[in-house]
Amino acid sequence: MKSKKIAVYPGTFDPVTYGHIDIIKRAANIFDKLIVSVAKNVHKAPVLSVDERVELLNEIVASLGVENIEIDSFDGLLVDYLKNKNVKLIIRGLRVVTDFDYEFAYASMNQKLCPEIETVFLMTNEKYSFISSTLIKEVAMLGGDVSGYAPEIVINKLKKKFKEVKK
Amino acid sequence: MKSKKIAVYPGTFDPVTYGHIDIIKRAANIFDKLIVSVAKNVHKAPVLSVDERVELLNEIVASLGVENIEIDSFDGLLVDYLKNKNVKLIIRGLRVVTDFDYEFAYASMNQKLCPEIETVFLMTNEKYSFISSTLIKEVAMLGGDVSGYAPEIVINKLKKKFKEVKK
Amino acid sequence: MKSKKIAVYPGTFDPVTYGHIDIIKRAANIFDKLIVSVAKNVHKAPVLSVDERVELLNEIVASLGVENIEIDSFDGLLVDYLKNKNVKLIIRGLRVVTDFDYEFAYASMNQKLCPEIETVFLMTNEKYSFISSTLIKEVAMLGGDVSGYAPEIVINKLKKKFKEVKK
Amino acid sequence: MKSKKIAVYPGTFDPVTYGHIDIIKRAANIFDKLIVSVAKNVHKAPVLSVDERVELLNEIVASLGVENIEIDSFDGLLVDYLKNKNVKLIIRGLRVVTDFDYEFAYASMNQKLCPEIETVFLMTNEKYSFISSTLIKEVAMLGGDVSGYAPEIVINKLKKKFKEVKK
Amino acid sequence: MKSKKIAVYPGTFDPVTYGHIDIIKRAANIFDKLIVSVAKNVHKAPVLSVDERVELLNEIVASLGVENIEIDSFDGLLVDYLKNKNVKLIIRGLRVVTDFDYEFAYASMNQKLCPEIETVFLMTNEKYSFISSTLIKEVAMLGGDVSGYAPEIVINKLKKKFKEVKK
Amino acid sequence: MKSKKIAVYPGTFDPVTYGHIDIIKRAANIFDKLIVSVAKNVHKAPVLSVDERVELLNEIVASLGVENIEIDSFDGLLVDYLKNKNVKLIIRGLRVVTDFDYEFAYASMNQKLCPEIETVFLMTNEKYSFISSTLIKEVAMLGGDVSGYAPEIVINKLKKKFKEVKK
Repeated sequence: MKSKKIAVYPGTFDPVTYGHIDIIKRAANIFDKLIVSVAKNVHKAPVLSVDERVELLNEIVASLGVENIEIDSFDGLLVDYLKNKNVKLIIRGLRVVTDFDYEFAYASMNQKLCPEIETVFLMTNEKYSFISSTLIKEVAMLGGDVSGYAPEIVINKLKKKFKEVKK
Repeated sequence: MKSKKIAVYPGTFDPVTYGHIDIIKRAANIFDKLIVSVAKNVHKAPVLSVDERVELLNEIVASLGVENIEIDSFDGLLVDYLKNKNVKLIIRGLRVVTDFDYEFAYASMNQKLCPEIETVFLMTNEKYSFISSTLIKEVAMLGGDVSGYAPEIVINKLKKKFKEVKK
Repeated sequence: MKSKKIAVYPGTFDPVTYGHIDIIKRAANIFDKLIVSVAKNVHKAPVLSVDERVELLNEIVASLGVENIEIDSFDGLLVDYLKNKNVKLIIRGLRVVTDFDYEFAYASMNQKLCPEIETVFLMTNEKYSFISSTLIKEVAMLGGDVSGYAPEIVINKLKKKFKEVKK
Repeated sequence: MKSKKIAVYPGTFDPVTYGHIDIIKRAANIFDKLIVSVAKNVHKAPVLSVDERVELLNEIVASLGVENIEIDSFDGLLVDYLKNKNVKLIIRGLRVVTDFDYEFAYASMNQKLCPEIETVFLMTNEKYSFISSTLIKEVAMLGGDVSGYAPEIVINKLKKKFKEVKK
Repeated sequence: MKSKKIAVYPGTFDPVTYGHIDIIKRAANIFDKLIVSVAKNVHKAPVLSVDERVELLNEIVASLGVENIEIDSFDGLLVDYLKNKNVKLIIRGLRVVTDFDYEFAYASMNQKLCPEIETVFLMTNEKYSFISSTLIKEVAMLGGDVSGYAPEIVINKLKKKFKEVKK
Repeated sequence: MKSKKIAVYPGTFDPVTYGHIDIIKRAANIFDKLIVSVAKNVHKAPVLSVDERVELLNEIVASLGVENIEIDSFDGLLVDYLKNKNVKLIIRGLRVVTDFDYEFAYASMNQKLCPEIETVFLMTNEKYSFISSTLIKEVAMLGGDVSGYAPEIVINKLKKKFKEVKK
């Protein structure tokens, strides 16, 4: 008998968007358990702390009413994190405007570092084709309305952050 | 408890290549059961008949020693085929040279036609980046050696076909 | 004073889709007059005749309640058609999955053939990113439901066509 | 009667290139009035100040002998700037090497923030396909001859700047 | 001592364009000898016969005043042709709108079929970015002026061909 | 008689990868002499100094047993460096995931700055499609095993560097 299928959906989630949430819901529907995991070692200074990003994801996932999702965070190599958790599947969302070359290089590297680990790609709904965390931050920072791009608690958190910065 | 995860890997497989076989092995490892299904209604006249393509796939899969793979064929809409089989997952292989726009349009259309059906993409190993059924046929027709692109039984079948054509 | 701005939106429209209609409405809003013009000399055999395509466009445009749109058809070189009409602007819709190279080569050629003619590109709403006339025809031919891709009169026309073909 | 068509061509223009000037001339020819507007809030430190960039644009536009062009600058959200000016059209130049994904995401966001605002794309002449402000700055900084990429007054301004930096 | 460097520039040349001529001149300048070779086994029916294409190339190359260029034709596999000629280098022109995936797959296949054969790519001047044999034929067939795309003898040959077709 | 063909393969080589080495070997086979030249003026702070990069290249090239390769470094404009050396050919490696736009803009600029200089592109073997200096550094910094991406002396050098940084 095949073992339970557990997958990790890694990302920066700075902040989580409706595009990410679309992937989370669908991946949780395909696999037995989904671990959404916030990457700690990002190059650019994030706007939200790891704790804030984990908290937002927890609140959003709680509101989805789906049982098989867990929120976590990691640093270091993704494949080391998966090995420690004994997980073999990585989930990545592809948008039509995705940087495919990066995704392919990343998946190829992970497979070389640990051949039994597979990357599974889901296509983000085209409604969310042009939503990115970077765009949300840029618009929110300039006072634009990004309510169509992420849940209210995310937007409010960002607004509060940018107000603090301006003080 | 989640039900058994069954996935369909649809394609023309005219002929099956090492790139396809890579995806078959990996998809069979991720899901509980994999149905590799040959599409009957292709626009261009195929070189191999549906029966020949199914037979080649059966021989190759038998040689893999993997139990959870079934070979089948279908015509009409892919989503109708999945509904009849009560399957919810479609597997597609992505090569770095894939026509992503086509893959996205196809996956988007399938989701619109039947929202509970998901398309899951796997990345073909970069070793097989430039292998395509079309290229194999072109080279084989001109007498070139395509033994690095598909198993021997596929190559022999093609050679025989092209000899018959020339007679 | 600048003269009235008239633009031609050329295309095959076999059949017209919601993506085309989106561009028609927006172009009609930007320019003083819009001529939607059906190309007669298409390489592939169209499913709908030029007359049928013009008729569908006329019915759809009538239903939009916009006054400054005219439906026409042309054959031969597009720039010759524009010169005869004394029009200087060509409208093209870009989808994120557009073949940009083709659009650029086509616009560049038209500018070389007639330097005072400009091509103006509008971005199709991302809701319609994956809608194409080709896809609609393929799915409709197999009996799939394409009601989300084009108005009802278009879908009905296609259904009727494909029934005739099968008889 | 349709109102006068006014369009804004926003950009960093650090510095303005022959590619930009090509778009300026053509957009001014299509619309009743064109406002070329220098963006103040750029992420990377610009080489030229906003005032210097506005001044160069003013000199260049004066030399074109076209009456319906105005030079301006803005900060904050582009759509807020357009709303204040009561302008509905944004002009963007596309080169064959453009980052289309960025352009599409940007246009989509602007349409979501303000649905009555349209982005109109013009194709930069292929002669200027490979000209970018970034490339000009890099080559000029190393003492290379960039006289084919921008008017003399731009080149001289850059040279002076880089001399100041080295002192 | 290294042997003389001979390269083959294969193509359909139906018809030869200014883009091809640009590559011919530059490749002849880099290597000791250049063989421009017309492919006989094309899928689509060519407008010009192999003899006509070879003759046009001969006339054009004669007019260049370059000594180290030879015109030839071939059918079958390109690598077999090179082996027979004892040539190790293939020249391909890349335009910014090239189908890179095809070029890469083709070069990769040739290297697999014959590892000592190298494909060398030159970038077509951006002036010729949008020129293609297909476009020239389409426009010439509709009576458009393609004099900026190929030498006069090519244009005249095409015109004569299309007149014959219409009779 | 044609003069000896000398080519320069410029790059940052921070660090040199198996992909670079593939290009070095093949370019040295095509041309009479190859100068691999390390660029000094890089924007981002390199991990290895110019001297370290030159030294690694020297050791690797020595181990190849190929006589006609020389290692060098340069700063300033590449074309000025070539003019000083009286070299007319630049070698660039293309991967299927290359940023072609950048490569084309760069080659176009070099040709404008110095028309007699040609850029010749070779296709990196697909085995090395996803190898980049950036990826190697990222993975090595996190302690991952990058032994499949570059020779041992490179890996050891990187490990030593990252240990020093952490101290």
